[in-house]
Amino acid sequence: MAYKAPVRDLTFVLNEVLEIDRYSNQPGFSELSSELVGQILEEGAKFAEEVIAPLNRTGDLEGCKWDDGKVTGPTGWKEAYQQMVEAGWPSLTCDPEFGGQGLPTIVGMAFGQFTAAASPAFSMYPGLTHGCYEGLHANGSDEQKAMYLPKLASGEWGGTMNLTEPQCGTDLGLIRTKAVPNADGSYSITGQKIWISSGEHDFTDNIIHLVLARIEGAPAGIKGISLFVVPKFLVNEDGSLGERNGVQCAGLEHKMGIHGNATCVMSYEGAKGWLVGTENKGMAAMFVMMNEARLGTGLQGLAIGTAAYQAAAEFAKDRLQGRSLTGPKNPDGPADPIVVHPDVRRMLLEAKAIVEGGQAFILWTALQADLQRSEDEAVSTKARDYMGLITPVLKAYLTDRGFHAASLAMQVHGGSGYTEHFPASQYLRDARITMIYEGANGIQALDLVGRKLPANGGRAIMTWFGEIDAFVAEHGGEGPQKPFIDGLADAKKKLQEATMWLMQNGMQNPDNAGAASTDYLHIFGLTALAYMWAQMALAAQKAIDGGSDDPFYAHKIATGRYFVERMLPDAGAHLAKLKTGADVLMTLPAEAF
Amino acid sequence: MAYKAPVRDLTFVLNEVLEIDRYSNQPGFSELSSELVGQILEEGAKFAEEVIAPLNRTGDLEGCKWDDGKVTGPTGWKEAYQQMVEAGWPSLTCDPEFGGQGLPTIVGMAFGQFTAAASPAFSMYPGLTHGCYEGLHANGSDEQKAMYLPKLASGEWGGTMNLTEPQCGTDLGLIRTKAVPNADGSYSITGQKIWISSGEHDFTDNIIHLVLARIEGAPAGIKGISLFVVPKFLVNEDGSLGERNGVQCAGLEHKMGIHGNATCVMSYEGAKGWLVGTENKGMAAMFVMMNEARLGTGLQGLAIGTAAYQAAAEFAKDRLQGRSLTGPKNPDGPADPIVVHPDVRRMLLEAKAIVEGGQAFILWTALQADLQRSEDEAVSTKARDYMGLITPVLKAYLTDRGFHAASLAMQVHGGSGYTEHFPASQYLRDARITMIYEGANGIQALDLVGRKLPANGGRAIMTWFGEIDAFVAEHGGEGPQKPFIDGLADAKKKLQEATMWLMQNGMQNPDNAGAASTDYLHIFGLTALAYMWAQMALAAQKAIDGGSDDPFYAHKIATGRYFVERMLPDAGAHLAKLKTGADVLMTLPAEAF
Repeated sequence: MAYKAPVRDLTFVLNEVLEIDRYSNQPGFSELSSELVGQILEEGAKFAEEVIAPLNRTGDLEGCKWDDGKVTGPTGWKEAYQQMVEAGWPSLTCDPEFGGQGLPTIVGMAFGQFTAAASPAFSMYPGLTHGCYEGLHANGSDEQKAMYLPKLASGEWGGTMNLTEPQCGTDLGLIRTKAVPNADGSYSITGQKIWISSGEHDFTDNIIHLVLARIEGAPAGIKGISLFVVPKFLVNEDGSLGERNGVQCAGLEHKMGIHGNATCVMSYEGAKGWLVGTENKGMAAMFVMMNEARLGTGLQGLAIGTAAYQAAAEFAKDRLQGRSLTGPKNPDGPADPIVVHPDVRRMLLEAKAIVEGGQAFILWTALQADLQRSEDEAVSTKARDYMGLITPVLKAYLTDRGFHAASLAMQVHGGSGYTEHFPASQYLRDARITMIYEGANGIQALDLVGRKLPANGGRAIMTWFGEIDAFVAEHGGEGPQKPFIDGLADAKKKLQEATMWLMQNGMQNPDNAGAASTDYLHIFGLTALAYMWAQMALAAQKAIDGGSDDPFYAHKIATGRYFVERMLPDAGAHLAKLKTGADVLMTLPAEAF
Repeated sequence: MAYKAPVRDLTFVLNEVLEIDRYSNQPGFSELSSELVGQILEEGAKFAEEVIAPLNRTGDLEGCKWDDGKVTGPTGWKEAYQQMVEAGWPSLTCDPEFGGQGLPTIVGMAFGQFTAAASPAFSMYPGLTHGCYEGLHANGSDEQKAMYLPKLASGEWGGTMNLTEPQCGTDLGLIRTKAVPNADGSYSITGQKIWISSGEHDFTDNIIHLVLARIEGAPAGIKGISLFVVPKFLVNEDGSLGERNGVQCAGLEHKMGIHGNATCVMSYEGAKGWLVGTENKGMAAMFVMMNEARLGTGLQGLAIGTAAYQAAAEFAKDRLQGRSLTGPKNPDGPADPIVVHPDVRRMLLEAKAIVEGGQAFILWTALQADLQRSEDEAVSTKARDYMGLITPVLKAYLTDRGFHAASLAMQVHGGSGYTEHFPASQYLRDARITMIYEGANGIQALDLVGRKLPANGGRAIMTWFGEIDAFVAEHGGEGPQKPFIDGLADAKKKLQEATMWLMQNGMQNPDNAGAASTDYLHIFGLTALAYMWAQMALAAQKAIDGGSDDPFYAHKIATGRYFVERMLPDAGAHLAKLKTGADVLMTLPAEAF
């Protein structure tokens, strides 16, 4: 079954829930109407469905080929990539100063859900390029920006992020790649990087690598890491391509999924690179890209869940097997479609509630990303606070739940799902990486409780609690919205209780914070989705009260009810686990594992 | 890292928890001492570790090859299979009348955990053969038994179970394969079967297929299904092999995992078969095998989780990355091993608590399987009741949690786990099928609430509750065992509450039972593991109180504490979800999915 981009679900969130027309006074939104966004998403949906989605299975079956440093993508991928560049999709949200279309992040993260669902492996080529663009845009010199940004914005050149080395993934302080200054102001970069997504391919004339390395004599640990730009082909002053640089793809990783994306071992042997930003401040510069990449990864995990859900729903409506417990629903057929069975519906609804709640969470967060640029300082401060707080939640919670949705989708398929004739296996295999890369989900949880919560004396979380309290106060009381508001209030109460526990116990023993981190993040994710579902339920009810007879609204409320009744109860279990503290985890000596 | 069979964990359960020496008056146990069992498991561990485990990765990478109906296994598998037959492992629990060693099921299901962990795909060849043996042993004529059982027991011949067809997996009433009587009393079998594990291979001279088919003119649905034995090569009266029968492997499935096992499309074209048991009673006959296969599948899912956990624990002790939150633990190294991090320990302990709790649950259940044959009718009735009740729980809960453990194990590995250089990916991919085949887990849940609970007026569950109540009454009160007993009592109370809810709501609307089924099964699984952990904690405490300074016992209690404090809280969430009923699942019209 073919992927269908969920345009209606997203435009509902944009127009009726977030009401983006309200933001016309914010940077990037002035030219933006809900009509224009609708048109862009319709076009984007077409592109994702017709050009990208058909490549996904080919990519899985063929993977990428390495031959003496050259990497060839799966059949048809280069052509599709070029079609994408010609259609202008990569530059959607880029800076008009460098050829971009200047649309806000929220539009990019709506369209991005379509491409990531249509083919997660394919969408990583423009995805990493955009990360590289952002890194140079935020940290590069004017000269570097002029040299690289226009072609990265358009997608004519590819871009990558080179962090990991064999001895260091999470702990980048252990980086060994070294940078030796040259007389001309450039550096000679030498070292090996691994797991470099889109590190080498045949889609573009040039590939721009952003590389973390250690300048000779720099301090040990992360305080001695600098960021460099290292193009595959050196760029002449007139913009034409010069000589081949000393960076090679030494091999490809064999992975469980995302076969269509080239995961490269990159070998730098005296490659010419230029410092980006300040010496020894590479980690801070890299975080611009990493935060962007984390949002993109959360989006990717959720988007794969979306595509997996769609395939499972289609299967459940087609597959005839057994009879409804309450009597035949398809009496003329040999059996009923399996969608009549409550437990099949449980699996589908769980995936659907995750997917639609997550779609809203992504767009709500993207709006905060845009509001960071507001000229109103109160607005921009709040948005920046939220971005810090929410980024690890969005990354970890949505990838965890996206994988769960993909696993449910496989289960709905039964044995068919385990064969490679149906797409369920690829979705499951592809989704699993999103829980790991761009900071494993445990690292996100630690970032949340260790850095993001205490930042600025807990200002971000206090603002977030205040916003939810105000929302509950405004919309509480009797009425059809009651279960949604009550569910949200209860989840928020548990999140607050968990926060208090962390404040009281995390300080005295940091292991308590580590022990609580993942459960805390899940309570946060549940609360965030409860907030999204409450907003969606209100908007849907408003349309119904306004006389709409479009069943879309009643279906939205029914899906949200599943979330409130059958997913929110997990918050209590997470809270109980969290309160058990570190002792139960730390007692066992290492050798007993 | 190499798989290490958990001999100590299993002998602890056998000797100190279940105290199998107490059962010497039961059939099969008379010759059995704990010493003998220890020797068998030591030998079995050696075989699994040294002969089978090294084949696992080869099987994943090479898979099976099909060429014009012939199937070749991965390199070295045929030789290992023959070594296994020569060593006598397949006949461990088979009937001495047919060349078996007559050991009780509990020994088979201890050894079986080793082979299933060492290579799940390999262990399915003897596994399916044993299922075929059981099916013929229970239902075959004396002539059929004499002809087939000795060679199936020894493993000289392979065996299979042929149920599924393209149009029917769960719903076997839709079977179309037909059987036409021949003049000589045999039948001509024609039809196509799919997903036949071990359906064709080059390991044995002959393969004996048990096939569900419909005799011409039989009633529609499952009441018209009969069971047939169809050998690949016909067997002459003197036991030698005769002509090739009309059954062919038409192709192999491409699957996400268990690549080393040949999953076959089997084509029957007038193949000669003989009725097993009574005409049109094939489903009942097949259930002998299916129940056995369900236990084996639960065991397989848990065993894969065991191997995955071991690999993750080893990785976590080796991999240096970051520093402990409470200060360096490996100050002379570049970083601490990641096992110092509370969240890494959370993942490891969750897997360990599942694995060790599951190991005990399997052996406890295997003991019930043996006690079914007791001459004391009260004992055998109780054991049969338990087997009916527990089989779907063991199958679904342990495969669900085994997959979860494999996923946690991958997460501990970080990016390495997603590459195919480490075994984490294979464990995850292999484990996923166990949730699907031999009755998808949703079907197990429905079998539990729809058939097994109400059977004999709920006698089985009432006996189970009574046993737990007596255990709690005997061991309750202050002392180190208190959290375990309290946890068990609380889980049992929730299971009872869920059972009451089902009685009150499932009758009036069967969809309520379906809607509650999976959550009910999970509460049951948690209660069962709570019971196992309470028994293990008591036995460990007894050893400590008896003066043992073996750290094994303290470690066992520490692992169990994780289960009580950080897994049992899920029971409350499942109960809350269960009580929401069918309405929230059934409201959405099918077309809205």
